[in-house]
Amino acid sequence: MRLEPDKLAEIEAMRAQQHLTRRATVPALEEILGVPLPVLDHGFVRLIDYMGDDAAIVQAARVSYGKGTKQVSGDRALIRYLMRHRHTSPFEMCEIKLHVKLPIFVARQWIRHRTASVNEYSARYSILDREFYLPDRELLELVRVERKAPAAEQARLFDLPAPEAQATAAQSTTNKQGREGALASDVAAEVIRRMKRAAETDFTLYERLLGESEDGIEGFGIARELARTVLPLSTYTQWYWKTDLHNLLHFLRLRADPHAQSEIRAYAEVILDIVRRWVPLAFEAFEDYRRHAVELSAGAREAVRRALRGEPVDPAALGLGRREWDELVAALPELGQMPPRP
Amino acid sequence: MRLEPDKLAEIEAMRAQQHLTRRATVPALEEILGVPLPVLDHGFVRLIDYMGDDAAIVQAARVSYGKGTKQVSGDRALIRYLMRHRHTSPFEMCEIKLHVKLPIFVARQWIRHRTASVNEYSARYSILDREFYLPDRELLELVRVERKAPAAEQARLFDLPAPEAQATAAQSTTNKQGREGALASDVAAEVIRRMKRAAETDFTLYERLLGESEDGIEGFGIARELARTVLPLSTYTQWYWKTDLHNLLHFLRLRADPHAQSEIRAYAEVILDIVRRWVPLAFEAFEDYRRHAVELSAGAREAVRRALRGEPVDPAALGLGRREWDELVAALPELGQMPPRP
Amino acid sequence: MRLEPDKLAEIEAMRAQQHLTRRATVPALEEILGVPLPVLDHGFVRLIDYMGDDAAIVQAARVSYGKGTKQVSGDRALIRYLMRHRHTSPFEMCEIKLHVKLPIFVARQWIRHRTASVNEYSARYSILDREFYLPDRELLELVRVERKAPAAEQARLFDLPAPEAQATAAQSTTNKQGREGALASDVAAEVIRRMKRAAETDFTLYERLLGESEDGIEGFGIARELARTVLPLSTYTQWYWKTDLHNLLHFLRLRADPHAQSEIRAYAEVILDIVRRWVPLAFEAFEDYRRHAVELSAGAREAVRRALRGEPVDPAALGLGRREWDELVAALPELGQMPPRP
Amino acid sequence: MRLEPDKLAEIEAMRAQQHLTRRATVPALEEILGVPLPVLDHGFVRLIDYMGDDAAIVQAARVSYGKGTKQVSGDRALIRYLMRHRHTSPFEMCEIKLHVKLPIFVARQWIRHRTASVNEYSARYSILDREFYLPDRELLELVRVERKAPAAEQARLFDLPAPEAQATAAQSTTNKQGREGALASDVAAEVIRRMKRAAETDFTLYERLLGESEDGIEGFGIARELARTVLPLSTYTQWYWKTDLHNLLHFLRLRADPHAQSEIRAYAEVILDIVRRWVPLAFEAFEDYRRHAVELSAGAREAVRRALRGEPVDPAALGLGRREWDELVAALPELGQMPPRP
Repeated sequence: MRLEPDKLAEIEAMRAQQHLTRRATVPALEEILGVPLPVLDHGFVRLIDYMGDDAAIVQAARVSYGKGTKQVSGDRALIRYLMRHRHTSPFEMCEIKLHVKLPIFVARQWIRHRTASVNEYSARYSILDREFYLPDRELLELVRVERKAPAAEQARLFDLPAPEAQATAAQSTTNKQGREGALASDVAAEVIRRMKRAAETDFTLYERLLGESEDGIEGFGIARELARTVLPLSTYTQWYWKTDLHNLLHFLRLRADPHAQSEIRAYAEVILDIVRRWVPLAFEAFEDYRRHAVELSAGAREAVRRALRGEPVDPAALGLGRREWDELVAALPELGQMPPRP
Repeated sequence: MRLEPDKLAEIEAMRAQQHLTRRATVPALEEILGVPLPVLDHGFVRLIDYMGDDAAIVQAARVSYGKGTKQVSGDRALIRYLMRHRHTSPFEMCEIKLHVKLPIFVARQWIRHRTASVNEYSARYSILDREFYLPDRELLELVRVERKAPAAEQARLFDLPAPEAQATAAQSTTNKQGREGALASDVAAEVIRRMKRAAETDFTLYERLLGESEDGIEGFGIARELARTVLPLSTYTQWYWKTDLHNLLHFLRLRADPHAQSEIRAYAEVILDIVRRWVPLAFEAFEDYRRHAVELSAGAREAVRRALRGEPVDPAALGLGRREWDELVAALPELGQMPPRP
Repeated sequence: MRLEPDKLAEIEAMRAQQHLTRRATVPALEEILGVPLPVLDHGFVRLIDYMGDDAAIVQAARVSYGKGTKQVSGDRALIRYLMRHRHTSPFEMCEIKLHVKLPIFVARQWIRHRTASVNEYSARYSILDREFYLPDRELLELVRVERKAPAAEQARLFDLPAPEAQATAAQSTTNKQGREGALASDVAAEVIRRMKRAAETDFTLYERLLGESEDGIEGFGIARELARTVLPLSTYTQWYWKTDLHNLLHFLRLRADPHAQSEIRAYAEVILDIVRRWVPLAFEAFEDYRRHAVELSAGAREAVRRALRGEPVDPAALGLGRREWDELVAALPELGQMPPRP
Repeated sequence: MRLEPDKLAEIEAMRAQQHLTRRATVPALEEILGVPLPVLDHGFVRLIDYMGDDAAIVQAARVSYGKGTKQVSGDRALIRYLMRHRHTSPFEMCEIKLHVKLPIFVARQWIRHRTASVNEYSARYSILDREFYLPDRELLELVRVERKAPAAEQARLFDLPAPEAQATAAQSTTNKQGREGALASDVAAEVIRRMKRAAETDFTLYERLLGESEDGIEGFGIARELARTVLPLSTYTQWYWKTDLHNLLHFLRLRADPHAQSEIRAYAEVILDIVRRWVPLAFEAFEDYRRHAVELSAGAREAVRRALRGEPVDPAALGLGRREWDELVAALPELGQMPPRP
């Protein structure tokens, strides 16, 4: 990520100002306020503003006249209680505003979270920079392998005859594939080269349509809103995005998850760090009760109870399909090692 | 619940009409369409309209051109998969509209669910019927006992010095209390008598303020919007309420829960029956993956893993407070019987 | 409004703290941060926190790297442009959090605004103070008169045979009514006396049911969630309420309107003052383009065009009903004085 | 728009089924239920389901026991009253579900309407068809001209020194431009040819990356979620979209507006026709009170009043900028012809 000098100057000017306030203030966030935190090749996340802190959650839960905090240990216990029992409204009392630069295909996943406010840079009225996302070689190899499973799964949902086999074929029958599904390095390089060339070609056409081109050759003067339709989904856009802590944690649970696409996960991980600085107690509770928690269905719970009693467990008899059983064993490996399963 | 003849006639006229439609139609719902299902002493739930069925969930998940259904077993598997992995958007594709008559204090809890559309009978413009809620004697006895715990819990959240003891005192130091906290029957009867008398008095004042009174005595002609402020929270109101299946299930998970107040739970239970008729596959999945599921926090998961390995479990060492441990043992009683706990 | 000494102390402690921040800060809001601004007899509005200022609206609209502001005149023009053309998303980028104490019947109107976060003081777990709303004499006289119209209007909607006449009768056939519908002062005093006595009686029963009474007489020990059902709708509750500027302005447009009930209007007016301090440019635009704007329907527009051409205007021929025409003349009195109307 | 035979068969099978229902039913909608209505070159809008009709709006506004309708004239008056006074909740009581096929750049504008439910075809798991949007020649010429104004306007917002002039330059300094800004036909044809070639090239790379290519040449086997990033914004996607009538009308007001981009306007116009069939009374009220209404700001209202009194009008003195005055004169041309303006 690089920023033009005028933008850096604007950021510096913004950071140079300090004011006195009676509002809840978090020094660890003030440190990074306005700073672009790099994500992917050209993207960033910038904290623009925030409202509230851990104490503000407590204050709202207690409908307090003052700060609400009695002592830190009491706050921690209350926040954990609220998280555990899904009393979500006090977490809505904290708000955050981010400036994000991100590829359009990531923006399309992100915008599905509806409880947020968004102002996006408009390609109807403004001209987009020649910036697009290219995966790096390591990611390309990695992604290719780990993505096979979801495709197979989806195929199964569509009741295709031999889902596993067929879906695998769809994404991997090729002699370019190395051991365990990874691309050979030189092939990965070739893929990236072609993606880059295609994006460059699209951007050149875009500029020609607009009537503005790098090499001084005259263009067509087409309206911006129409010219942009030739740009690839890897094109970078940017927006201001504002949401509350409850909805942010929901976003992070889904988007920092291993099943999320790597690119949006890269953003989620940067935001997780911001949340850790912002509301450390709420963040810890989120880790314990959401991110690293496991939900046992009625059948899974019965399976665990039987295993605890030393009885054999028959997943099918408890209504657990193979996939659900596998997920359960991934979360509780000891279940898979219980001795006598019929 | 009693209905005036003109309202019964309106309902009958509505039910008498049948039309041909190409839309998804659920015969089990058509049976009860428009029928007031009684709740509490004067309340009801009436199904007014619905959109979609189990197949509509599948249809949206597959972005189908036709009904989306291949075979019932495939639909069931897909719906369970969607519910298990919290792919919630297909469940938003079914919609329901209810006409509900309910006490105002219940309406105040209900309205907290924001993702719904509401049209309430207006007491600014219309005069409310002389109808208010009185608990029946059995409920009164029951509620009194089971409500002690939450009050104690809340006290603890507020960091009061000896929470359990104090909170209990707040609601039960009285020699009128029978065994296990129940009210003696005659005392319960007296309570209900006093509640009734108070509500009657309030309604009489209301009518007097409005300038309309039962006994023909002249009133004051105060505006309706102001006169109503003397009415008790037990007064019945009514509304049209419309929401989608995803948000309805969320409502039901919270409001059919044993921790919900009995009165709103009574409504939730009637609506659960409507959902069972409407989308039996989604309902079954909801029961298995939501209502009867158990969530294990990071610490609880570690406790279960140790117990499965036959190792001793020390809740405190795993970061589990006494309350969380008790909840875990309530869900997995075998954990409480594991032999050697330090 | 009076506050207990411990609450005043909490507020003072909160106000005494100041921090340095890089966030947008509004000195005129810092002055009143935390201060309870009195509304009605026992209510208040307290500003707890805020995010953003006028410049933040501009910053989001421009997806800026810095503060977004170039010069104040440019900001004002942009904000007015955004307001005029209903580009609402930049106004969502400012957020405000209030602590409000208000009667329950006002809370019931307020909560209908769904795009907000709320934490209400819980009468399931906590005991409500003996505080209820009583109209003052002047209001009582005033309200009574101006409320007649809406009732009549609503009656008309219900297709009642002679709406105007009948609805008026419903609220005013009484010899206690003075000229122009006002209550004689002594009658108003009597009404307030009766409302007060009824509320006092309800609160005494509430305390008796809870097992806690002022006079030391033993109570019944009924659960709080049930005991509260005897309280009147005039009982005060309190909540933390957080929303964004766009939704706040929408709230204010409806609730500061002359058609809103006086009591919620009293709150809206206090909040209008807070908004004027917070975002003076947005507030001015809101006044010009929303609060004091007039919408001309297709028919009304045609009427204005004809009048401007000096032609006679026949409302009925343009599809304007009597009520709509009257509203139009109220907004543009000159229309009613145009000479030759057929 | 063409559909594969299997999809046509699915649609036919869906349309062939009819059921008896007690729900509100609209014959004019049943006719088109499931039928793909063509939009643009490959897109469509298909009505999948609906809930409610004009009478359902009345029914909810009256919180009725029966259908709510007394007589059609009463319904019409009530619906117009509700629309005029922005009593929006009864319009939320009707719901509609559409299956839409649309270019991604249109989908990105559409999704900004947050109060709706969406299930989009997933390019993470499924392979996209080789279908992309190309403007037709007439549109290309038209759009180019009418788009100049907004660009200029936006430039002004950004405080550029000589906005009008500069922004025009940005999109039109080219000798290919004909009279009044239209492209010569042969140039338009060339533009479309280049757009088509670029999209074809992108799709060929996409298929090569996926490991599936038309010409049988082996591909790279890249994950679908990554391969799709090379596709242009003109690529078609599809989704199920469900919203209520109030939010649909808001969508239509913005998207059927002449300022909306032509492509989304094409969808809005097809949906307008569906609404006209569905709820003719609400549609008529929407036309009169929203689409063809004009809002007068405080300053504009004063200008109209002065003009009606025959006084001279000085826009600047009333705080009306040049742009606002021009918009006002466009709505009320007589204002621009008033004789003596200083």
